[in-house]
Amino acid sequence: MSGKILIVDDLAINRIILKVKLAAACHDSLQAACGQDALAAARAQRPKLILLDMMLPDISGIDVCRQIRADPQTRDIPVVIITASSDRTRRLEALAAGADDFLTKPLNEAILLARIRNLLRTRETEAELRLRAATCRELGFSDAGGRFDAPGRIALIAADPATAMSWRGALAPLVYDRLDLLTPQEALTGADGRAAPDLYMIAANLGHQGDGLRLLADLRSRLASRDAAISLVVPAAESETAAMALDLGANDLLTLPFDPQETALRLRLHIQRKRRAEQLRRQVDDGLKLAITDPLTGLFNRRYAMAYLDRMANRTGQAGTPYALMVLDLDRFKSINDRHGHAAGDTVLRSVAERIRATLQPGDLLARIGGEEFLVALPDATAPRARQTADALCDAVASAPIALAGRPEAVCVTVSVGLAMGRAGGCAQEVLFRADSALLSAKAGGRNRVTVGASAA
Amino acid sequence: MSGKILIVDDLAINRIILKVKLAAACHDSLQAACGQDALAAARAQRPKLILLDMMLPDISGIDVCRQIRADPQTRDIPVVIITASSDRTRRLEALAAGADDFLTKPLNEAILLARIRNLLRTRETEAELRLRAATCRELGFSDAGGRFDAPGRIALIAADPATAMSWRGALAPLVYDRLDLLTPQEALTGADGRAAPDLYMIAANLGHQGDGLRLLADLRSRLASRDAAISLVVPAAESETAAMALDLGANDLLTLPFDPQETALRLRLHIQRKRRAEQLRRQVDDGLKLAITDPLTGLFNRRYAMAYLDRMANRTGQAGTPYALMVLDLDRFKSINDRHGHAAGDTVLRSVAERIRATLQPGDLLARIGGEEFLVALPDATAPRARQTADALCDAVASAPIALAGRPEAVCVTVSVGLAMGRAGGCAQEVLFRADSALLSAKAGGRNRVTVGASAA
Repeated sequence: MSGKILIVDDLAINRIILKVKLAAACHDSLQAACGQDALAAARAQRPKLILLDMMLPDISGIDVCRQIRADPQTRDIPVVIITASSDRTRRLEALAAGADDFLTKPLNEAILLARIRNLLRTRETEAELRLRAATCRELGFSDAGGRFDAPGRIALIAADPATAMSWRGALAPLVYDRLDLLTPQEALTGADGRAAPDLYMIAANLGHQGDGLRLLADLRSRLASRDAAISLVVPAAESETAAMALDLGANDLLTLPFDPQETALRLRLHIQRKRRAEQLRRQVDDGLKLAITDPLTGLFNRRYAMAYLDRMANRTGQAGTPYALMVLDLDRFKSINDRHGHAAGDTVLRSVAERIRATLQPGDLLARIGGEEFLVALPDATAPRARQTADALCDAVASAPIALAGRPEAVCVTVSVGLAMGRAGGCAQEVLFRADSALLSAKAGGRNRVTVGASAA
Repeated sequence: MSGKILIVDDLAINRIILKVKLAAACHDSLQAACGQDALAAARAQRPKLILLDMMLPDISGIDVCRQIRADPQTRDIPVVIITASSDRTRRLEALAAGADDFLTKPLNEAILLARIRNLLRTRETEAELRLRAATCRELGFSDAGGRFDAPGRIALIAADPATAMSWRGALAPLVYDRLDLLTPQEALTGADGRAAPDLYMIAANLGHQGDGLRLLADLRSRLASRDAAISLVVPAAESETAAMALDLGANDLLTLPFDPQETALRLRLHIQRKRRAEQLRRQVDDGLKLAITDPLTGLFNRRYAMAYLDRMANRTGQAGTPYALMVLDLDRFKSINDRHGHAAGDTVLRSVAERIRATLQPGDLLARIGGEEFLVALPDATAPRARQTADALCDAVASAPIALAGRPEAVCVTVSVGLAMGRAGGCAQEVLFRADSALLSAKAGGRNRVTVGASAA
């Protein structure tokens, strides 16, 4: 991204006026005089925001906006459409085309600059999330879009019930989201027991001057509403309140007297955005979970197991507590892969993992630490209990042949186990080394058996 | 967390007054009348914030604060100390003990509530980050604290150079951070080419009323400064500005006339916090990287490779483009592990990975997909180029024995390669199956060789 704002207007004087205003607010700008130039500049320069005149000599500003949204290279750039006309149909078209906002000339400078700050802040936050979630998309997580359209819940918060009811009356035929009338108290406490609203539509003036802004700040500080969309309803003349609402983190402004159709469009837009951000956050969390999981068996992976061993060995205040480590290795696994193919080998690994898991207690650690190698840690085990568990694991794996999908034959597998005891406060790697050596003895001794390693020196 | 605010005061009337104020702002509260009860309630109930009277009958509020910060169970709970005294030494002690703020009676209700909103918002953001980073800590990432104390950079932004110089003069003997005088323009554009400041100390009144607040909102919207600490310098009488600054995302307020020592302490506190949050963000990013990496070789892991194959095979607009897949398997690797131990086996795997990597082109994919199994994808290769590359990989692996650390002998390793060609638009799994079958033939044919799989049906 270039860090510049792209000004699109066919009149040079308009471009210059905007450029000067932006420069005074320390924003560098680029200019384009027609739609084609605007699209080329958006792609080549990746501006941080676009101020787009509605009337252009070649293609309309609305078409430019639509094309910007359609191109993955440019679709995340905020677009504010500016026009001298107050044609309602055009406004609705602009919003439907994906414009973030729509400002009418003459421009109110305070609102323009606050809107720019607001969109840039949102963009940076989303860009950071997207960057993180990109790792997860590379892992093939679906980026499904369908659910963004599911009905949501909108809270209507006005100074008095009559106003809120009139909002609901006007919006109900136009939105398919649930519309609930809430008091500020209900909004803050979530006292009605329902899921938190996706969007709060709040009158700027809730009885006292500034109450709506305070409610906005308060909702942003509470867990249930901090990531919700918030639209402030502001009388047209109160430009200072409008600018402040944007700086306090409102997602949108609805100007009074309000146009139900435009409002419905804006509400839907912001519910969708909120859901998209929610999905990105979920993807980041899922990606983090993958960092510690073995994808084939769903067990913890080697990385997690090694970090866990160190934590277990270094338990504070519990020095001396005995623990057991076991390294389990499938016997002659290579021949299963070679004879029956990798898919059969994977089935065997999953079945063995499941048999081991079913034999262990909830507090025990089970990880897959190599191709056919598993690690078991019993954090508080005595030597006799550990030996008993190890024998039970051997038996569980060998208990019955493992069926292979779509094949008549089943495979008999066994496992060799190296067991070693350690004590909290010592070195886990040394215990693991002893367990590994014991495993080699178990293999040499004929497989399908447990060998207990030497005690710590 | 209980979602309640803990009020600690020995006088029932004070507790009741606060409880009523908080209830009006929709905050539930808990009460404690002495330090021991406060500590017990903090541990048992995990309040979302603590309002702590300085003078308590048993232990001082400062000691309570210190103990809350020392206990991992409670250390992240925001603490605001409240007192009737204006004893400067006690203020400094409270801040040094880890209090987030210090409010003097009579309490200004607007500032109190704005401070609560501000601290709760910060806490929620940090808690979310910490939760994500916790996964990474489970992976053993160090949580090293030392670097938080390294000198930082503080930007001083006042209405006029004389004021900024006086700030610098007063603070220079007390902080070891770099103190730079900046204009608002310099702060926004980063025009001096230095790294962005860790903390911005900004006069609320920069010539015009509200200019400091606008600069604050503007810094929060720019990439370089959005995660910086920001302290607003506010004249004592301007409580509305102070409350607004907190709602706009200031991290701290510095009241005029300012106390250099208290200011220095507060600046350091907020630089440390900013760095801790930075570290958490870094840990999340590192954790995500781990989700796609094989820890032993640093190559992509199987999970990433499979998702990559699907993306490569489904390239839009490039249907029919030929690509090559190779599955490489080290020959008789098991015997290396058995004869020389796992550490030697790991050395061999790392060396082989490096030899393969060095033979490939930058756009090719290389992943470790099993214990001793690698996957190579050439996204745009013809069959002759793929064959040539596969032969080169065989040669590179076998080129020289691999030395083992601390052992006289070196190990000769070879690799068998199964190669199959696919075309974008087809099924990657089918191509992988053919490469796997070809690998089995290469093994059966004597190892250390390339076998080309059958063409697609």
